[in-house]
Amino acid sequence: MLKPTEKPFTHSIRVAWADCDPANIAYTGRIPYWALESMDAWFESITGLDWYALNVDRGIGTPFVHMSIDFRAPVTPRFALICEVHMTRLGTTSIAHRVVGRQDGVLCFEGEFVSVFVEAKTLKSRKPPEDLIKLFQALS
Amino acid sequence: MLKPTEKPFTHSIRVAWADCDPANIAYTGRIPYWALESMDAWFESITGLDWYALNVDRGIGTPFVHMSIDFRAPVTPRFALICEVHMTRLGTTSIAHRVVGRQDGVLCFEGEFVSVFVEAKTLKSRKPPEDLIKLFQALS
Amino acid sequence: MLKPTEKPFTHSIRVAWADCDPANIAYTGRIPYWALESMDAWFESITGLDWYALNVDRGIGTPFVHMSIDFRAPVTPRFALICEVHMTRLGTTSIAHRVVGRQDGVLCFEGEFVSVFVEAKTLKSRKPPEDLIKLFQALS
Amino acid sequence: MLKPTEKPFTHSIRVAWADCDPANIAYTGRIPYWALESMDAWFESITGLDWYALNVDRGIGTPFVHMSIDFRAPVTPRFALICEVHMTRLGTTSIAHRVVGRQDGVLCFEGEFVSVFVEAKTLKSRKPPEDLIKLFQALS
Repeated sequence: MLKPTEKPFTHSIRVAWADCDPANIAYTGRIPYWALESMDAWFESITGLDWYALNVDRGIGTPFVHMSIDFRAPVTPRFALICEVHMTRLGTTSIAHRVVGRQDGVLCFEGEFVSVFVEAKTLKSRKPPEDLIKLFQALS
Repeated sequence: MLKPTEKPFTHSIRVAWADCDPANIAYTGRIPYWALESMDAWFESITGLDWYALNVDRGIGTPFVHMSIDFRAPVTPRFALICEVHMTRLGTTSIAHRVVGRQDGVLCFEGEFVSVFVEAKTLKSRKPPEDLIKLFQALS
Repeated sequence: MLKPTEKPFTHSIRVAWADCDPANIAYTGRIPYWALESMDAWFESITGLDWYALNVDRGIGTPFVHMSIDFRAPVTPRFALICEVHMTRLGTTSIAHRVVGRQDGVLCFEGEFVSVFVEAKTLKSRKPPEDLIKLFQALS
Repeated sequence: MLKPTEKPFTHSIRVAWADCDPANIAYTGRIPYWALESMDAWFESITGLDWYALNVDRGIGTPFVHMSIDFRAPVTPRFALICEVHMTRLGTTSIAHRVVGRQDGVLCFEGEFVSVFVEAKTLKSRKPPEDLIKLFQALS
């Protein structure tokens, strides 16, 4: 288990009308999307490569093998959704993140996510390249 | 824990180009959507009320408090995605489901989901009405 | 302008809670998605290739250059959304469709769509292959 | 026809992996979503009310009756998508916008959109309230 970074990475989401269902809150299915988007932004922040560049330019995919989310409070368009992303584990071919979403200081959801590094074309698992490993290890 | 119904409910998804990312497989974020859609269809099958009718006509919401999904194999447009839905637990104010997705017989994902019954307007938890309880209990 | 086929192709959409906004009707942004999905299903019906197979197996893309939609009545989960798809024009490197969506016989939307045939990798425009041209021409 | 505002309102979109299809470009269906989101942000900018607040707090809906979009160049995650929004017409019960999307200065799409003001509960058309009319008229 790596120590959390001192200043966690955050990604801000504009929650909108389009995201809400007739209960007047964000539809449950949107929340995994936002957690994923926040991890994509985390990769970009740490490595300079978002998932698109990682895949298209470097030939590396990161398919998910697990997600687990607890929904603590409804998400609405009243406030920005601030998603905090922590890398919680770096395995040989996998990486785990914790994502915590808050609105106006209120905990809305928290989730654990595990993805694996693969060759983009074959989807076969592989180690991440050395330059990325160094950047991830520097977070611990 | 309720016994599984003998013939599990299944809901078929047409996976399409629109659902796929540049890895040529369905984007991870789509899978929670399909699991949710399958539970919505399960409610309609068992009670005659989909989430929309349950909410708008009967004033009952079912927000999720938990989801946990293991992704076992990529989902693609090559085959229909058959989602099997089981009610795994009926609590006083909550209900749990297991959703298993397969394509051409291959296990693609499996997940556990917990939602609570609430008053649609106030989002306060409540027991489901008697007629629904009877229908859910008949499954066990 | 090609004559309409005698029995128009239709594609049925299950409109759900997930698609609705706090106005209790399907969110506007969902409707282009459904029109596109219906055209994807049309391609599969006429050629045996959905957009995914057309792109991945045959190396042909069909990016859109135009869409125009008139929204005539709200779409809700009360009824299936039946989308009728007509090919309205087959150009040298383009194809146009008309999509009409109805619920319970009520006209909900009607739209015109134009896409072009391209090499999937370069996005350069090209003629569709002869086997597809024959299938499209047989519709007129 | 109102004169364009001197400094057009712009809304920036983070295009991501999640938005792209196997052609490595944003899926066509995402573009209407982004144009709509940009108009929602425009409302918030001009009136202080996004569509959610306009609907939930003021009881006013703005369903669309028309959209027409020309797609000029692919959208990718390489650059932010800057969406410029102009009010092009203010009718008695309707409002029209023009949305232009650019990446790195390149025109990606341009579209025309018409929505009507309605009572949120009944969906019956109505004039916008005086305070909003004044704010819209001040743009011309």
